[in-house]
Amino acid sequence: MRRPAVVKAAVMPAPNVPLEVREFPVPELEEGAILLRTLASEVCGTDVHLHHGRLAGVPYPLIPGHISVGEILAVRGAPVDVNGGALRPGQVVTFLDVHETCGRCWFCTVAKASTRCPRRRVYGITYAAAEGLLGGWSEAIYLKPGVKVLPLPESVPPERFIGAGCGLPTAVHAIERAEIRLGDAVVVQGSGPVGLTAAILAQLSGATQVIVVGAPALRLQEAERIGADAVINIEEMPPEARVARVRDLTGGRGADVTIEASGNPAALTEGFAMTRDAGRYVVVGQYTDAGDIRVNPHLEINRKHLEVRGCWGTDFGHLWRGVRVLEKHGERFQWERFITRRYGLGETNEALEDVGQRRVVKALIAPGQSGMNSS
Amino acid sequence: MRRPAVVKAAVMPAPNVPLEVREFPVPELEEGAILLRTLASEVCGTDVHLHHGRLAGVPYPLIPGHISVGEILAVRGAPVDVNGGALRPGQVVTFLDVHETCGRCWFCTVAKASTRCPRRRVYGITYAAAEGLLGGWSEAIYLKPGVKVLPLPESVPPERFIGAGCGLPTAVHAIERAEIRLGDAVVVQGSGPVGLTAAILAQLSGATQVIVVGAPALRLQEAERIGADAVINIEEMPPEARVARVRDLTGGRGADVTIEASGNPAALTEGFAMTRDAGRYVVVGQYTDAGDIRVNPHLEINRKHLEVRGCWGTDFGHLWRGVRVLEKHGERFQWERFITRRYGLGETNEALEDVGQRRVVKALIAPGQSGMNSS
Amino acid sequence: MRRPAVVKAAVMPAPNVPLEVREFPVPELEEGAILLRTLASEVCGTDVHLHHGRLAGVPYPLIPGHISVGEILAVRGAPVDVNGGALRPGQVVTFLDVHETCGRCWFCTVAKASTRCPRRRVYGITYAAAEGLLGGWSEAIYLKPGVKVLPLPESVPPERFIGAGCGLPTAVHAIERAEIRLGDAVVVQGSGPVGLTAAILAQLSGATQVIVVGAPALRLQEAERIGADAVINIEEMPPEARVARVRDLTGGRGADVTIEASGNPAALTEGFAMTRDAGRYVVVGQYTDAGDIRVNPHLEINRKHLEVRGCWGTDFGHLWRGVRVLEKHGERFQWERFITRRYGLGETNEALEDVGQRRVVKALIAPGQSGMNSS
Amino acid sequence: MRRPAVVKAAVMPAPNVPLEVREFPVPELEEGAILLRTLASEVCGTDVHLHHGRLAGVPYPLIPGHISVGEILAVRGAPVDVNGGALRPGQVVTFLDVHETCGRCWFCTVAKASTRCPRRRVYGITYAAAEGLLGGWSEAIYLKPGVKVLPLPESVPPERFIGAGCGLPTAVHAIERAEIRLGDAVVVQGSGPVGLTAAILAQLSGATQVIVVGAPALRLQEAERIGADAVINIEEMPPEARVARVRDLTGGRGADVTIEASGNPAALTEGFAMTRDAGRYVVVGQYTDAGDIRVNPHLEINRKHLEVRGCWGTDFGHLWRGVRVLEKHGERFQWERFITRRYGLGETNEALEDVGQRRVVKALIAPGQSGMNSS
Repeated sequence: MRRPAVVKAAVMPAPNVPLEVREFPVPELEEGAILLRTLASEVCGTDVHLHHGRLAGVPYPLIPGHISVGEILAVRGAPVDVNGGALRPGQVVTFLDVHETCGRCWFCTVAKASTRCPRRRVYGITYAAAEGLLGGWSEAIYLKPGVKVLPLPESVPPERFIGAGCGLPTAVHAIERAEIRLGDAVVVQGSGPVGLTAAILAQLSGATQVIVVGAPALRLQEAERIGADAVINIEEMPPEARVARVRDLTGGRGADVTIEASGNPAALTEGFAMTRDAGRYVVVGQYTDAGDIRVNPHLEINRKHLEVRGCWGTDFGHLWRGVRVLEKHGERFQWERFITRRYGLGETNEALEDVGQRRVVKALIAPGQSGMNSS
Repeated sequence: MRRPAVVKAAVMPAPNVPLEVREFPVPELEEGAILLRTLASEVCGTDVHLHHGRLAGVPYPLIPGHISVGEILAVRGAPVDVNGGALRPGQVVTFLDVHETCGRCWFCTVAKASTRCPRRRVYGITYAAAEGLLGGWSEAIYLKPGVKVLPLPESVPPERFIGAGCGLPTAVHAIERAEIRLGDAVVVQGSGPVGLTAAILAQLSGATQVIVVGAPALRLQEAERIGADAVINIEEMPPEARVARVRDLTGGRGADVTIEASGNPAALTEGFAMTRDAGRYVVVGQYTDAGDIRVNPHLEINRKHLEVRGCWGTDFGHLWRGVRVLEKHGERFQWERFITRRYGLGETNEALEDVGQRRVVKALIAPGQSGMNSS
Repeated sequence: MRRPAVVKAAVMPAPNVPLEVREFPVPELEEGAILLRTLASEVCGTDVHLHHGRLAGVPYPLIPGHISVGEILAVRGAPVDVNGGALRPGQVVTFLDVHETCGRCWFCTVAKASTRCPRRRVYGITYAAAEGLLGGWSEAIYLKPGVKVLPLPESVPPERFIGAGCGLPTAVHAIERAEIRLGDAVVVQGSGPVGLTAAILAQLSGATQVIVVGAPALRLQEAERIGADAVINIEEMPPEARVARVRDLTGGRGADVTIEASGNPAALTEGFAMTRDAGRYVVVGQYTDAGDIRVNPHLEINRKHLEVRGCWGTDFGHLWRGVRVLEKHGERFQWERFITRRYGLGETNEALEDVGQRRVVKALIAPGQSGMNSS
Repeated sequence: MRRPAVVKAAVMPAPNVPLEVREFPVPELEEGAILLRTLASEVCGTDVHLHHGRLAGVPYPLIPGHISVGEILAVRGAPVDVNGGALRPGQVVTFLDVHETCGRCWFCTVAKASTRCPRRRVYGITYAAAEGLLGGWSEAIYLKPGVKVLPLPESVPPERFIGAGCGLPTAVHAIERAEIRLGDAVVVQGSGPVGLTAAILAQLSGATQVIVVGAPALRLQEAERIGADAVINIEEMPPEARVARVRDLTGGRGADVTIEASGNPAALTEGFAMTRDAGRYVVVGQYTDAGDIRVNPHLEINRKHLEVRGCWGTDFGHLWRGVRVLEKHGERFQWERFITRRYGLGETNEALEDVGQRRVVKALIAPGQSGMNSS
């Protein structure tokens, strides 16, 4: 395979203006760096927020795309994977979008909360296009030295991995915080990629009843396909009826664990009511500021003996564990079926629109369709 | 000691009307029951709420007083303590106010959350005066069969135990939920009996910095006496300044763990801001419905990776552990000094008024002063 | 249905002498008691030990059979299930064999370790035949007041429940101690009923690789049937080779979690070597004293940063959770296929022999075949 | 302060031959490196084992001394502390002896067990003298780029820190594994520096009864000084009597938690018997291979429902938390009093002999006494 002369990438110039495809020179590799030919990237809800300017401190213009799969085109030096194995051209890999967590600050070393490390950077979100090919909506991705690379098992096709997408490590993290036990009833609020994968992982973590509350019908069909015991369509029922339905399905007590993956602040009020006394509530859907809700500390927290756990970001362990799940349960859950449509680099505006309108479950970006392979 | 002919007790006839001292016959004991001569009982914040009619489902008229110390006057059958030791007349004991948790329902057996058992009853709160001498503001207390009795070690005088009062098992429970680690910085919001004992127990659980946020000065002096590293008087500083002060004291990060023991819903907003990212927040002060607050799920829970834990009620283990702490650390912390004033049975209205106005830290009810001893 | 005139039961008169079928009068019910017509009981490894006299303090003669399913023949008073539902004649139920845990002693209240309650009694093991029909190898079982009864869902046939048997709550408890995480590799040592159900529950708790080490071939076929990723036959490979095989299957590191369910002390040495550094090892198979092993605290515990967790007995929560699993995953795992053979009351000696020689995976005792139904 | 021309250091040439003082050139600093003037280092039990050749893979000759305090003589580049503060000449600091944990391997990222990282190196143990001034028994210490440096608070004199020594982070780690709760009874086996600091930290973590089992009298006096509720001298009582004494002191049940810090394999047998059913046992003293013991899996682990946790190595969080404890509780516990004697660089053989013979509690190495300060 010859290295291309130029690399095309979709660039988001600023909030609320259309993305455009630009050309970049093929970068020189510094010691320990890797160049990937992008096989597939994804659009996630955060990309929509990014385009609407709802995230603070984003260095526009940038190349979006945080979770991607690529084939190694070139390496410099001797980068290794987590098991110490050499990384070589031709391998199909993914990588942790989160980079530069320092491993030395108080959050990394004492609190052991690397997702709150102040030096944390994220591919496709916090790097400017001027800093390099640091997003997945591009024919090629530059992996800086130290980026944590994970070879994809042969049994996990790139499409399956992208069907899960960034929702996979996010849901793994949420499930860890959820501490589900054998026989638990679990409610998942939200039927986007995070919610759907959380509904899968809840089943794989011992829940014997999983109820997905979301919309639209397209997504709830997927919820049923992947094994949800019940789905509740929020477009068909007001909140009180949804709560009543969950209580009815759970012997009157409510769910042992509820996982919020909706992005709607009002979901908390509804979700608290869906959760049993002395239960657990995980908040993983509130990745942008969508406003406040009213909470009654006596009724909803103290007397209820409720535990509420926020869940921010992911680390390499979540990605690694997620890929183990894909490897084992890929045929059973077929995450690639979450991909409603594939988009080339020139179609990213349409992709963002479709995700924002929930017309698709998952949108795959296929930069290779624009021709880099043949150059 | 002869058994008295009648027993005097303070009865709360209904919400918002004065208590009055009434006479009751000395009860016959059923098999396994115990009669205590009350040495001391207490007034806690819940009693004030009880008097204001803020608790649901209370069977007025009732005899208040949930945590008490007494001397065994009589037993019927062979009741035993937790170690299987016989309980005998003359012993000084306390007992768990919570009774009739069933040990058989789903909450008791599967969820292991006995504080949410639907059959749970509480001395001094959920028993009517017509059901018997089932509150501590009485010369005698009737311990029903199965009430969990704990002999007080000789090194723990009744006054010291009542100085800690129901705040002791409550704070033990809150501290269990708090999971403090060696070297942690802990904020306690509220300087009443629960808050003060939580501030003690935080020190005993590994915190190397404890900051008490409360009022009035009388209570904060107690906080300083029992070893708080810093106190913040909410009467002297607006909320933003209080938050800034905590951040300043904690290297800019906020506390690792915050324990809310204030009863004020607004404390949550302030307390979230006082807590570091990926920290823990325990809600133990919201025992009555004092209204809602606004919460921003993105900023205050999800992005903050915060854990919020409600804490309702206590079980026998909390009481047992609390008494171990009194036995070991009684001389160091001298909980009896929380008792600002002692009140006879005829002075309970004044006691409630003083507690409600926070004119005292702790009010002790001394039923024996009304003469039963001499009968 | 008419109540029978006499009840036949298999009685173990003493260690190492044959069981015999005896007749008992139909008992009168005390308040709160229940009489079951036994539909099925089981033989477990403990019954073999019981017959060999290897358990201390057993009151021979006794009626064995601790986990059973029956139909309610009669109740006295108003016994209820865990959800407060009335128990009525005609219902098919199981019950927790463990009884009389006191809920009042130090282990029950403070340590919250009811399996170490000194008053604990167990149906089929610690009750003498003279005390009543307190074992399952009998046409009828007398449920004393307070025995925790669990109605079997209609979707769980008695044979499926008995196929899982006492291995189900035991494995649930072991899995709780194991704290498996998504993506973990788990080794199960032992392919008897506890080991096989542990291998199922490990899959349901997030493990993506489950390796069963056991014998004979009959049991390992069952292990493969229920989804083990690999099996290792101890009759075909020496211990060092088994360890090497596990390491080979786990990328050289060993299993994240190993569950010992073999009953052989030497399994610990082998199992420690099969477990990765900083892994977890659960000991659930050592229910009788089969001797000592040598342990090197430096190499096997300290330097390895290993966690070893003993697991004794079960409580109602384990049984309840186990039945939820049967209800949800019964068709997938078909526990009834563990039942290699069914035995009437007159065939219990043969059943014990077959279980002891591992000629069967699970032996079902069917007392009803001896005719009580028709009486 | 001028930089010295040569640096004197005590070198251990090989196992079982005397150490000798050698001269080294003052090193050039690479980018990010720091040069310390050593104020104090320590002798720990591991150094004795090192001298006896009991550790595998040690690159003799080497400069011992893993935990040390020094004054920054020089920095190159802009190294920072955990809070991002610049490190400057004149500051008094300590540092984590453990270095080069990679933050990228499976143990670091997925298992989150950095103490099992295969690339882990340790100052004073795994670095050869030929690699530089990488041990504390030297007038100067070379801190490689990335060594985790912790400024010592002014309220913590170097002698106090060294009195605690490497036993401090080790005991912090052991206490984390111990999960002590308020009111627990804790046994500590071993009265060397790890045991004594564990006895302190147990008190600070909620234990209301701490029993130290060890020898000789000198060390047990220290145990009493720092607040042990009881001490048991193993030179005065056989193991059975020691176990009986612990049971007697703990109401017949044994300790809730036992921490083994003795280094003697036989301590496990004794310690298991000292621990209550369903208790916890932490193994932190077995840092070298001192042989096997016999364990009965039925009696000592399974039936006992015991949890045994090995504890290997430390990370920066343990050191940081330990220093917080010194800062808060230094005056109360006065760790410097563990230092029985101070030794110059020419006296290290004597120091090793004294530690090996337990003639001292803690031995401080004071390299500065050999004259570097004045050069």
